[in-house]
Amino acid sequence: MVNRPTTATPDASRTGRTPRADARRNRARVLAVATEVFATDGLKVPVQEIARRAGVGTGTVSRHFPTKQDLFAAILLSRIEELTGQADALAEGEDPGTAFSSFFAILVHAGAANRGLAEALAGAGYDLEDAAARAGYDLPGRLRDLLARAQQAGAVRPDVDYADVKALLAGCVARDRSNSDPAALDRIIAVVYQGLRTSPAEQAGRTSDNA
Amino acid sequence: MVNRPTTATPDASRTGRTPRADARRNRARVLAVATEVFATDGLKVPVQEIARRAGVGTGTVSRHFPTKQDLFAAILLSRIEELTGQADALAEGEDPGTAFSSFFAILVHAGAANRGLAEALAGAGYDLEDAAARAGYDLPGRLRDLLARAQQAGAVRPDVDYADVKALLAGCVARDRSNSDPAALDRIIAVVYQGLRTSPAEQAGRTSDNA
Repeated sequence: MVNRPTTATPDASRTGRTPRADARRNRARVLAVATEVFATDGLKVPVQEIARRAGVGTGTVSRHFPTKQDLFAAILLSRIEELTGQADALAEGEDPGTAFSSFFAILVHAGAANRGLAEALAGAGYDLEDAAARAGYDLPGRLRDLLARAQQAGAVRPDVDYADVKALLAGCVARDRSNSDPAALDRIIAVVYQGLRTSPAEQAGRTSDNA
Repeated sequence: MVNRPTTATPDASRTGRTPRADARRNRARVLAVATEVFATDGLKVPVQEIARRAGVGTGTVSRHFPTKQDLFAAILLSRIEELTGQADALAEGEDPGTAFSSFFAILVHAGAANRGLAEALAGAGYDLEDAAARAGYDLPGRLRDLLARAQQAGAVRPDVDYADVKALLAGCVARDRSNSDPAALDRIIAVVYQGLRTSPAEQAGRTSDNA
């Protein structure tokens, strides 16, 4: 039901009227405009208005995204694709403790920023995790890997598991409901990370072992 | 719509057929049986079966609890009443840090144990927090007070607020969804409390100041 972000729509190839590259460009443009408009003006903005602001016809929008739910899902799948890339970059460029804590913080902020979209989809019975998995984006796997590496490096408590981290992540995202305090998300992330990391004494022990 | 746990039902005094003490006893009995049965056999057990196991007629149950939702709500309000008592006992009997951390742990376990009931009520549009407040049970106030006292005593980070604690509480309760690991709740509570407390160095500083 939901088109994969990186492939042209079946319509484009079937009708032959729109060159594949144009279709892709239109799809990306609608997606970018919709992401921006929903974030700024809320999820009730009608699809007609998205089409107008993207400079395309409503037919173009509905060819790529037959329902508004498809548009919501495509926005989140695109964000999930981006997040898996960020996880890979952190895994390559940072020490394991920093990679894990940075990715945790990124996920909390992404979760808070996209909560409305995610709740709208969940309310409609759409399983985003399943759709992401089918599209080949393994965000849970990335988080598991970063956790395991941070634990192996002695940066994170060895006794916590992925379900703990996921639950704490959900708690941090939920903090955002009372939107009054802009520093609140970073503070609660810091609290959780202080809880997750091995104690300074244990870290010092490991560091001197490695020296 | 929901009767207060400690008052006799209007029906009992209006009809005059049932002495007030008997009505109270029946109500308490139905509530105790319902709490047990729903916890053991799930929320789908019909009210008729509750009545049978409590040894009363279905009319008695429906006089006290006109709908199943009223019964659910009464169970949770009774638990909330109990929890406020536990908060008071901890505030009196324990040092502020222990009182706060113990109450946090109690709330997580209570939240996990009663999640099904709470979700059933929330799904039916019933506002439990509001009902508890109207019944005079100020659980948020107790948690706020215990947090403030723990912060004043230097046991908990001074920068966290009630919304942080509430979000972390929700996260811990959510951990219970993957029920496989019985030690998981206590572990995630420990993680959160390690995050919330002031660092050992800060605590040592305060302790030597007080000595």
